[in-house]
Amino acid sequence: MNQIKIFSPATVANVSCGFDVLGFCLDTIGDDMVIRKTTEKGIRISKIVGADLPFEADKNVASVSALALYNDAQPDCGFEIDIYKNIKPGSGIGSSSASASGSVFAINELLGRPYNKTQLTQFAMKGEAIASGCEHADNIAPGIFGGFTLVKSTTPLQVLQLPTPDNLYATIIHPQIEIKTSEARAILPKNIPLQNAITQWSNVGSLVHALHTNDYKLLSDSLNDVVVEPYRSQLIPHFDVVKAEAIKVGALGAGISGSGPSIFALSKSKITAEAVAEAMQNIYSKTDISFNTYVSKINTEGIRVMKNE
Amino acid sequence: MNQIKIFSPATVANVSCGFDVLGFCLDTIGDDMVIRKTTEKGIRISKIVGADLPFEADKNVASVSALALYNDAQPDCGFEIDIYKNIKPGSGIGSSSASASGSVFAINELLGRPYNKTQLTQFAMKGEAIASGCEHADNIAPGIFGGFTLVKSTTPLQVLQLPTPDNLYATIIHPQIEIKTSEARAILPKNIPLQNAITQWSNVGSLVHALHTNDYKLLSDSLNDVVVEPYRSQLIPHFDVVKAEAIKVGALGAGISGSGPSIFALSKSKITAEAVAEAMQNIYSKTDISFNTYVSKINTEGIRVMKNE
Repeated sequence: MNQIKIFSPATVANVSCGFDVLGFCLDTIGDDMVIRKTTEKGIRISKIVGADLPFEADKNVASVSALALYNDAQPDCGFEIDIYKNIKPGSGIGSSSASASGSVFAINELLGRPYNKTQLTQFAMKGEAIASGCEHADNIAPGIFGGFTLVKSTTPLQVLQLPTPDNLYATIIHPQIEIKTSEARAILPKNIPLQNAITQWSNVGSLVHALHTNDYKLLSDSLNDVVVEPYRSQLIPHFDVVKAEAIKVGALGAGISGSGPSIFALSKSKITAEAVAEAMQNIYSKTDISFNTYVSKINTEGIRVMKNE
Repeated sequence: MNQIKIFSPATVANVSCGFDVLGFCLDTIGDDMVIRKTTEKGIRISKIVGADLPFEADKNVASVSALALYNDAQPDCGFEIDIYKNIKPGSGIGSSSASASGSVFAINELLGRPYNKTQLTQFAMKGEAIASGCEHADNIAPGIFGGFTLVKSTTPLQVLQLPTPDNLYATIIHPQIEIKTSEARAILPKNIPLQNAITQWSNVGSLVHALHTNDYKLLSDSLNDVVVEPYRSQLIPHFDVVKAEAIKVGALGAGISGSGPSIFALSKSKITAEAVAEAMQNIYSKTDISFNTYVSKINTEGIRVMKNE
């Protein structure tokens, strides 16, 4: 095998109560990437379609993560990476993570899978660090593991793969405004009330239990964020009404995807998820903000191979 | 059926990371209670053995909780309650909760089980409020439901029954010093660092996942409390060395039981749990503090009927 084409999906980090630890993987939106072996050693970005991203190997997240794996594996070949970007940078659904994860996943396949998923996550975090300024895994892990993940700790890296209820669908709306991750971090308080923290860890515990027991009602009850959302939602115009409308038409819950501006909702069926998309669109249609919406089953597989030669 | 004898077990609340929400049920330590129907209406405490507790129906936690149920059910008989107290009040292993839960459980049996476990928990919380000043369920729920419980919320009351790994044993050491619940509450900060809160909810999520997957290693990794233990452990002499020794001889983890002074440890086998007990005893034996130790399988049944007539 000398060349591989993969689909590297978008992901939703935080998932309301699970700030900095939970995430899930989408299916209908993601980047395509083609990675091929070269006789010339090293890592090279050979093509970028759909976004204005750097070609320098030490500046592109896909090559930085690939280099972390490459320097560890020390293979007797090199690799070049074509990136077909469908996930808009800055959308809050793991654009940089998809690039960082996709390249290490693909190279691992081309090398005969010397690394496990946790190791791939670790390499991809090196790429993510270029984009966000710190090594975190809450978008990386769901892409590489699929489904719902809980990043138990980053040092040492411990990723838990949580079960995914069968009929769970996500709706995403991406209002095209810019929120920098650094700004979204800066707006958060350094200290929070103990009572709110207790509410939050109760919700995280019950969300994990709900996923294990296929309990949609409990999942719905657990999708609350009393810690981060009250701050970050201020950065997203019409957030409160979008969330309220989503729940009104049947969503189990809704919240900020990653650090925004995308808003996610979870629903028990595709029909409901589509109704939620329509309700969300109706709100932004009345504004001058451009937007994209996506409806997706939760992707339990994660990154997948499209074609190899 | 006119009379019932029950065993109302001791319980461990908080369970390291799960402050205010998690708890589990013990098996080898608990109160015996005999409850019988009377022609005279109302609730009466008829006997108290083993502790100096009030007989007045509006002051004893067992009768206060019983009255909450009684006033709702409005049966055409009364009940009298004999309490054989084995759990020392103030020990931190749910002494008042055992009394509050036991009476409502028993009366529900005598009435033909008109109430479910959540309703019984709700009634018992009225009794617990007399002892602790607020209605909480983190010791009540494990007694009534058995095994591990997560109190998702108290208004409305939502209790989740979590799975219990087969070979899980608890060791308890009760150093006989007095810590008032109110003092143990007062020592806690009103605000905590967001980073610590994130660590805590990551641990709660992974602890719930560990219980669902029978993963003892993950359970061990999750039994950390970075929020409450650093404060409350100061109130318990030799806590740090007791915890360290417990883990050294094989415990999965150890922490403060409820608001203390009891210390609990969890182990994968009875043999390890007994070695942990010995290690804990060795430390307090060298001091002038009296203590009791208990080794118990996790009780997945909760309160149980010993005899009915």
